[in-house]
Amino acid sequence: MRPTPRAETFPANTPAASQVFTTVLSQGPLPRLEVARRVGLSPAAVTKAVRPLIEAGYLVEGVDEEARPALGRPANLVRVDGGRALFIGVKVTGDEIIAVLTDLCCRIRVARHLPLSEREPKAVLAGITDLVQQLLGEADGSSAPVLGLGIAVSGDVDRGEGTVRYSPFLEWRDVPLAELAAMTTGLPVTVDNDVRALTVAEQWFGAGVGLSDFAVVTVGAGIGCGLVVHGRVVAGAHGVAGEIGHVTVDPAGPLCHCGNRGCVEAIAGEAAIVRQIREATGAELPDAEAALALAREGVAAARDVYARAGEAIGRGIATVANLLGPERVIISGEGLAAYDLFAEQIRDAFVAAAFGSAARCDVRTHPLPFDEWARGAAATAIQSFIGPDTSR
Amino acid sequence: MRPTPRAETFPANTPAASQVFTTVLSQGPLPRLEVARRVGLSPAAVTKAVRPLIEAGYLVEGVDEEARPALGRPANLVRVDGGRALFIGVKVTGDEIIAVLTDLCCRIRVARHLPLSEREPKAVLAGITDLVQQLLGEADGSSAPVLGLGIAVSGDVDRGEGTVRYSPFLEWRDVPLAELAAMTTGLPVTVDNDVRALTVAEQWFGAGVGLSDFAVVTVGAGIGCGLVVHGRVVAGAHGVAGEIGHVTVDPAGPLCHCGNRGCVEAIAGEAAIVRQIREATGAELPDAEAALALAREGVAAARDVYARAGEAIGRGIATVANLLGPERVIISGEGLAAYDLFAEQIRDAFVAAAFGSAARCDVRTHPLPFDEWARGAAATAIQSFIGPDTSR
Ligand SMILES: [Zn+2]
Ligand SMILES: [Zn+2]
Repeated sequence: MRPTPRAETFPANTPAASQVFTTVLSQGPLPRLEVARRVGLSPAAVTKAVRPLIEAGYLVEGVDEEARPALGRPANLVRVDGGRALFIGVKVTGDEIIAVLTDLCCRIRVARHLPLSEREPKAVLAGITDLVQQLLGEADGSSAPVLGLGIAVSGDVDRGEGTVRYSPFLEWRDVPLAELAAMTTGLPVTVDNDVRALTVAEQWFGAGVGLSDFAVVTVGAGIGCGLVVHGRVVAGAHGVAGEIGHVTVDPAGPLCHCGNRGCVEAIAGEAAIVRQIREATGAELPDAEAALALAREGVAAARDVYARAGEAIGRGIATVANLLGPERVIISGEGLAAYDLFAEQIRDAFVAAAFGSAARCDVRTHPLPFDEWARGAAATAIQSFIGPDTSR
Repeated sequence: MRPTPRAETFPANTPAASQVFTTVLSQGPLPRLEVARRVGLSPAAVTKAVRPLIEAGYLVEGVDEEARPALGRPANLVRVDGGRALFIGVKVTGDEIIAVLTDLCCRIRVARHLPLSEREPKAVLAGITDLVQQLLGEADGSSAPVLGLGIAVSGDVDRGEGTVRYSPFLEWRDVPLAELAAMTTGLPVTVDNDVRALTVAEQWFGAGVGLSDFAVVTVGAGIGCGLVVHGRVVAGAHGVAGEIGHVTVDPAGPLCHCGNRGCVEAIAGEAAIVRQIREATGAELPDAEAALALAREGVAAARDVYARAGEAIGRGIATVANLLGPERVIISGEGLAAYDLFAEQIRDAFVAAAFGSAARCDVRTHPLPFDEWARGAAATAIQSFIGPDTSR
């Protein structure tokens, strides 16, 4: 039996220390002076913040051998020792649980999947606990302790309370998941909305590093959006934010599960695409892959459905850009498998609907394997571990 | 001739001091301990921050005589001495310039209007200079110095550069207004987008005090939106943000000046309302007042146009709520004169299109006389004076 990991706390107890660590974690290795410049602190303050982190082994300082210059003194760089601590991230979908073991730099070491046949909280909790135990077993071979568990669920999640308020895919209401999972695993638990978790991973370890304002748009079963404004993930005063899937594209369009018509998700969500292709072609389509195959064969009616989906997504992105003016929009999600079928339409609709210089926003794709969702959950656990000041 | 006011700088040169002053300015009078609690600093840090501000006369501390309790020791409160400094705010519209002289608490002392017959930068600058000179003359009777000038213009404004990049109403492109006005008035000048300026005034002195996430939606000639996220006004990475007027309501709707169809502004902007009522009734309508009068007389076709305008605004507000989840949306602007004709439709459309708990957002109206736009400009000047750390 492993020692209870709760015992270890992060030795950065000031906002400045958290900020210094976060900067090195997401942008390092960096010389101390550069860290000071980026966080807006004096070099002395950085040195003070760095000391306990080096003593506890979270940061290391030394010459970067790979970047050693041919002439002159090599720079002394500060970097995070990724192997110092481990974290577990879990993503719960409607039909499976994905869990990853990552290091402190959020690099995946092991990934495990578990099919989910039942969706009641009890069954899901048992599945999570099982996977976490397997990964704790894997971690036993390492000298690093597992210091936190992050769980990502789609829907309305209150991270502060650790509660899943409402998840349509799981049909859950008010499930205190953080408390339950902490009891069964013995780990400190962070529960967050899956798109927000993915956005944290992009902010710290992905295409959002160094940007204070960006958006992640996920395309798949649902159409979601994580927003970073003024350097922090937007959570919404009442738990709802980033609902790009319910931006109206056409008030006379198909009915959406939210009760409105012509939402982006009602046109471009996976189920909507399959349904529309069925209707347009009369083909029996078991799933999204079959729908995609039909479009790839060149069936015009199927291709049109994807084209309209791309247009809806592009309009949704333009709405985000017109309201928030992000530097970058990162499109991701399993729906990118069909990207060649709607990339052009996304781009054209975005440019047409973007207002003035909002069109200068850098819209790009970043394909993410499904494990990345679980990695996002691990990122929230790392974030919680580092300190409350960086968690919002 | 007054001494050059540039000489005086604000004696708070740390982010903590700016934060303490801003908190007392917008939420005071407050006991020191309460200031410490609200800004998250130690009482000792607050005392240190407050000292030079009291010495320079910006803050005063003393017993609030009006709130003196019947029993017990009265609380010692810190408050801003509004009379310590004066500021001038200017709003430029397509047909007039409005200027106000305010105190440090952004209370209007004098307001002046000047009709604008020409819109070239030279003519507008001359008008601004004339009004500022008049207000400087008024200020001469006071012992307080005028420490800044704020100018608010609709359109794409780069506050950092002090440049009006593009203003459709004025037909300006790339006008370095801050530099020009600083030369003609001798004052430090802040130039900002008018809706953002109004949002600053609401954040510090209005219905947004104490809220970290809210939106101001202005209804009138244009439909605008100022956003505060994580306690700061959203400016947009490329200068565009809050373009609620160009949220699509109906892709088959009327053509908008932005080139798209069925934008909120193309349905609910003043010109759009007048045009639609003309078309629906065949009446000769010289202006928005005549259109409003017709609807007030009960002409059904005119009332329908207002009803549809309300629906479009409500959908736009729901889009903001679904993406950002603000605590409050404040509807304002000269278009509120017709509020009785579309209040119900705004509310109904908002509730129908708000996703889940986003509907819990507090949507309220805050009628603002036209001078308030100029007051918003004064608020940006006060903000610039207090310190760069609070200006974004
Ligand atoms: Zn919907
Ligand atoms: Zn438009």
